Amino acid sequence: MRVNLDCVPCFMQQALKTAKLATDDERKQEQILRETAALLHELSYGCSPPHIAHQVHEIVRRVSGNPDPYSKIKSHDNKLALRLYPWLKKQVSQSDDPIYTALKLAVAGNIIDYGVNHVFDVEETVKRVLGVDFALDSLDEFRQELEKARQIIYLADNAGEIVFDRVLIEELDDIRVTLVVKGGPIINDATVGDVREAGLTGKVELDYMGNGMPGTGPERTDPVFLKKLKKADLVLSKGQGNFEGLNEQDYIFFLLMAKCPLIAKHIGVGVGDIVFIRGFNR
Amino acid sequence: MRVNLDCVPCFMQQALKTAKLATDDERKQEQILRETAALLHELSYGCSPPHIAHQVHEIVRRVSGNPDPYSKIKSHDNKLALRLYPWLKKQVSQSDDPIYTALKLAVAGNIIDYGVNHVFDVEETVKRVLGVDFALDSLDEFRQELEKARQIIYLADNAGEIVFDRVLIEELDDIRVTLVVKGGPIINDATVGDVREAGLTGKVELDYMGNGMPGTGPERTDPVFLKKLKKADLVLSKGQGNFEGLNEQDYIFFLLMAKCPLIAKHIGVGVGDIVFIRGFNR
Repeated sequence: MRVNLDCVPCFMQQALKTAKLATDDERKQEQILRETAALLHELSYGCSPPHIAHQVHEIVRRVSGNPDPYSKIKSHDNKLALRLYPWLKKQVSQSDDPIYTALKLAVAGNIIDYGVNHVFDVEETVKRVLGVDFALDSLDEFRQELEKARQIIYLADNAGEIVFDRVLIEELDDIRVTLVVKGGPIINDATVGDVREAGLTGKVELDYMGNGMPGTGPERTDPVFLKKLKKADLVLSKGQGNFEGLNEQDYIFFLLMAKCPLIAKHIGVGVGDIVFIRGFNR
Repeated sequence: MRVNLDCVPCFMQQALKTAKLATDDERKQEQILRETAALLHELSYGCSPPHIAHQVHEIVRRVSGNPDPYSKIKSHDNKLALRLYPWLKKQVSQSDDPIYTALKLAVAGNIIDYGVNHVFDVEETVKRVLGVDFALDSLDEFRQELEKARQIIYLADNAGEIVFDRVLIEELDDIRVTLVVKGGPIINDATVGDVREAGLTGKVELDYMGNGMPGTGPERTDPVFLKKLKKADLVLSKGQGNFEGLNEQDYIFFLLMAKCPLIAKHIGVGVGDIVFIRGFNR
């Protein structure tokens, strides 16, 4: 997906939100907004929204001097999800269709985002998502491909949510899972530290998607990275950011909650709907 | 009030909303956002929010070539309010305290804003506001000053709402009313055309507050304009914009619904609360 004009105020909102997390110094917060404005004045609107979000967060990091503004929130979200882990496992083990339930849980985990504070709230929301059907799904196709697959590439989304991913990954018996996380801190995206905190070390092979900074791995759209994805038996992608960057790759299965009105419209569902769909080009 | 960092994404949102109203040409919409970004990069954050909003709307007008993007909406809102006028008059005439009811109606009129389409919806919301007390009020002081006043300066807010103002103005017997509107189109603010459409011609004397463009009258903070306000027996100001520009003038009575979280916080009330207060400096 490409940047829509509706994304522009949203980038400014993200800059403000992250600036406040990154520093208490109001002069620095103001400088972050001014530099974001300069970026939005000059940038090409032909790239994908996450590509610009990365540049906004790069400004926040540089001006605030804080390399990881979401660090505390990520750890908090991981701990919160881990407290729920036994309950999540029980939902799957008691289900008639464990893979389906684990997929639903993995998308429900997407609601753990910065701002949620109580296990109780998360449990309530997860229950609600479990009671709702996918607005669109490619479940049958996924089952068929899963049957034959020996290796799956799993593109992770956020910290916290990654504990829910663990529950799904633990259902993928006899399949080699390559979990792809960010090579460096960017917003609340999962990184190698979160893989460790979520208890996934040793259960998966790790690979990296970068955030445009040297040493963090290739961008989602890097040709070598895309070739790796294409060669895999199966690719499962979590969340909106990965969908925005890779939505035209029709061999990828995307599991997400449509939180942004533009993404919901692009897919053809309502805001808040959960979907499990293959990539498409339109 | 001065610009807060929270206002910055909001200016970008206003630019987008008005750009879409002003032109269907997406290249022009994009240019409007880029120029707004340049403005937000360079501007002084020491001025008041409406001052910057005016500059944003100046960009929209210049780039789109549309001198009055809200023209249709304003006419629509006036017609909608006029259909409600007989019902409004009845509310006042049947009230035990006509001035109080007329003041409540005048602030309720503030909910007619671009986006409301049905008389029924407006009537329902007005009824709700009539059933709610002011979160803060200086009603006793206002009544005392009104008793002695021979002239009142009434600072208008939006089109549509101005029909509700008419109902209040018609209750101010034996007082000379000077109605101050904008000297040129700016957002959906009332101008002389709206005074005519609202049926207020001949019932008030007119004066103007400018929007920074030559020929539209003085800015709210112009010393000569402020002197005129200070000399008046009584000044009644409608809406958030006038409050943002004049809130430190303690002789003015401000009648508004606190829609913006920063304004609500500044006054010490909740978002959506209605207040009738004197200006203050803190």
